[in-house]
Amino acid sequence: MMTTVGILGGGQLARMLALSGAPLGLRFLVMDTEADACAGQCAPLLVGDYRDESALAEFASRVDVATFDFENVPAESAEWLAARVPVFPNPRALALAQDRLVEKNLFRSLAIPVGDYAAVATRDELETEVARIGGACILKTRRMGYDGKGQFRIRSVADVEAAWQALGSQAATVGLIVEAFIPFQRELSVVAVRGRDGEFRSWPLTENWHVDGVLSASLAPAIVDDALAEQAFAHARRLADALDYVGVFALELFCRDGQWLANEMAPRVHNSGHWTIEGSETSQFENHIRAVLGLPLGDTRMLGHACMLNWIGEVPDRTAVLSQPTGHWHDYGKLPRSGRKVGHATLRAETTTELATQVGQVGDLLARQSQVSPIVQALR
Amino acid sequence: MMTTVGILGGGQLARMLALSGAPLGLRFLVMDTEADACAGQCAPLLVGDYRDESALAEFASRVDVATFDFENVPAESAEWLAARVPVFPNPRALALAQDRLVEKNLFRSLAIPVGDYAAVATRDELETEVARIGGACILKTRRMGYDGKGQFRIRSVADVEAAWQALGSQAATVGLIVEAFIPFQRELSVVAVRGRDGEFRSWPLTENWHVDGVLSASLAPAIVDDALAEQAFAHARRLADALDYVGVFALELFCRDGQWLANEMAPRVHNSGHWTIEGSETSQFENHIRAVLGLPLGDTRMLGHACMLNWIGEVPDRTAVLSQPTGHWHDYGKLPRSGRKVGHATLRAETTTELATQVGQVGDLLARQSQVSPIVQALR
Ligand SMILES: Nc1ncnc2c1ncn2[C@@H]1O[C@H](COP(=O)(O)OP(=O)(O)O)[C@@H](O)[C@H]1O
Ligand SMILES: Nc1ncnc2c1ncn2[C@@H]1O[C@H](COP(=O)(O)OP(=O)(O)O)[C@@H](O)[C@H]1O
Ligand SMILES: [Mg+2]
Ligand SMILES: [Mg+2]
Repeated sequence: MMTTVGILGGGQLARMLALSGAPLGLRFLVMDTEADACAGQCAPLLVGDYRDESALAEFASRVDVATFDFENVPAESAEWLAARVPVFPNPRALALAQDRLVEKNLFRSLAIPVGDYAAVATRDELETEVARIGGACILKTRRMGYDGKGQFRIRSVADVEAAWQALGSQAATVGLIVEAFIPFQRELSVVAVRGRDGEFRSWPLTENWHVDGVLSASLAPAIVDDALAEQAFAHARRLADALDYVGVFALELFCRDGQWLANEMAPRVHNSGHWTIEGSETSQFENHIRAVLGLPLGDTRMLGHACMLNWIGEVPDRTAVLSQPTGHWHDYGKLPRSGRKVGHATLRAETTTELATQVGQVGDLLARQSQVSPIVQALR
Repeated sequence: MMTTVGILGGGQLARMLALSGAPLGLRFLVMDTEADACAGQCAPLLVGDYRDESALAEFASRVDVATFDFENVPAESAEWLAARVPVFPNPRALALAQDRLVEKNLFRSLAIPVGDYAAVATRDELETEVARIGGACILKTRRMGYDGKGQFRIRSVADVEAAWQALGSQAATVGLIVEAFIPFQRELSVVAVRGRDGEFRSWPLTENWHVDGVLSASLAPAIVDDALAEQAFAHARRLADALDYVGVFALELFCRDGQWLANEMAPRVHNSGHWTIEGSETSQFENHIRAVLGLPLGDTRMLGHACMLNWIGEVPDRTAVLSQPTGHWHDYGKLPRSGRKVGHATLRAETTTELATQVGQVGDLLARQSQVSPIVQALR
């Protein structure tokens, strides 16, 4: 009688999906390879490998519809599942977003501008492409990369050897792509949702700051002129329509000299949309669930101004955030581990002045001035 | 390493406490007499009787701090537990609020005005008191009543026989009290929170409408003149201080001819505070958890205007609510049953006009005009 939503992957995204879907009267089942996956604290957890057909079969038998917290679920597993229960987003969209090369080709075919790039299979090809692109590049694994993992920065041809040492062995397994390094002024994302009926809604643009390839801070609404913002939304919509995408996704964009260059698409709820929990009428998590179930999409308007600070490795002292009137705390219930996303804080205020003051105070209290300073500056 | 919060009682209040406490990185353990208690869908559930010492001992051994979703936990069980783990609110506050007579005596001693009342142990005493009070009365059980249960309306002395037939047998078990029926113009509640350090915060006043003694709809902020509102907050604060209360509580007030008369106190998060999930910077659920853990209390400011509609017996068609930009849905995951609180909806808007329009639409779509009309009228 009650609907059960299955989620492949049991990290913080699954955890926040389950927490925001529960008020809709839904039950959840999370599948993860790890018995201590943090979503398991908030929903029943099935431990199993995504490539294990018997585990997948059990999962399928216990859910009414399935979705993902993790885009690197093998495409075949997603296909296998989709033959048995409705799966959103569809496995094709997932497969496209899993491969940086295929994804960038798709962007191009949809007239979504991208920087220069090329697939590389050998050290020689890498050297040739770096020379052709000219200037700084980044070598990346085509598949399985996330949070800046599987990337190597190449300042000039002289770095090709080191880059190949670092990633060359993965050419045969997950493939490699070399991209022109984009000297962007700003990095932004469109977080949007598309319903089963094709309805499209986007939250206001979010500005993002990364440290070592990992998201450090986000601010919404980003200050962007209307025409440019409309272009970004149009790109996101074209992409979602082309993929017949259902659910929430993010389109990561570089902004260079007033022009967009697409970086990548994340076929799931996204770290740069975490602020929507407190900062929007409907959160990205609830709207993902609504889309997946074919329910009416919720309003994506903002409530004031919001910023998000990511906690990587370990969570700092929560009272610094909880003592701010605008402060909201999210601890994912994970054990601390270097480089791991373990939590975030959102500050939400009616005015930019109030937001700047309080995020500045959090930075001071936690001695994290460098993390908050891009936000404080952007709010000036 | 991680803190586990124990909750005695596993209904919708425990469910919403667990959902709003999870982002603080907490774990929960819910104890209920029923194996299908709805909070068990969102947190581990221990099935047991509150009077069973071995079940309580297991509960105590698995939690770091305990609180309640249900005020009718036997006072001795709460005391037993409090000797083993910190319990908030304290068992004395719980015991006082469990007994309508003791509670009303306390209100009087704190100069919180109440209507006329008297304890009655026999049919003759009831007749005497009804005659003394003069006019309509309500006979109520002193303990264990909730949602209008255990009450009998007495229009005049002629009804005494019927009232005694209905409730007289409970005089020896839970006790009886007879109250003057208050011909109030409005019914409101103060929902407030007091921290371990005595800090006190209140959400804006909420106006409530009951049907057959059960809450049907709430609206916040209630329009009340400042001096009167300050009096209500002062009453609530005096009460909380007197009880050394820690956590969220509600003080239910009648407003008659511009004067407050206290009805009762609920020593827990309260149905008239459900709108705080979307309508306030910090929800009553999160602030209860913050108080119980000794964390800084969250801001209780409102975000616009909010109203809440209760679903009793069964939930209506959710799309009527989800299709409103202001609509938020809460299904407690319970099986339908006559008289049971199974869910609620909150509508939240920037303006009273937007709120009135959308709640009116929900009323039309669900053919529940009578439920929404008091709200629409109050918003005019
Ligand atoms: N071509 C590029 N030019 C400049 N910066 C880049 C480029 N590619 C990635 N980055 C930086 O590294 C971050 C992470 O890279 P991305 O390709 O998004 O990988 P991931 O899948 O790990 O998020 C980006 O958000 C951006 O800050
Ligand atoms: N003395 C009274 N005069 C008028 N109405 C009353 C009185 N007592 C209760 N009511 C009505 O019945 C409702 C439920 O009664 P209450 O005493 O609050 O019991 P419960 O514990 O079930 O909430 C009140 O909210 C109010 O609408
Ligand atoms: Mg990225
Ligand atoms: Mg009451």
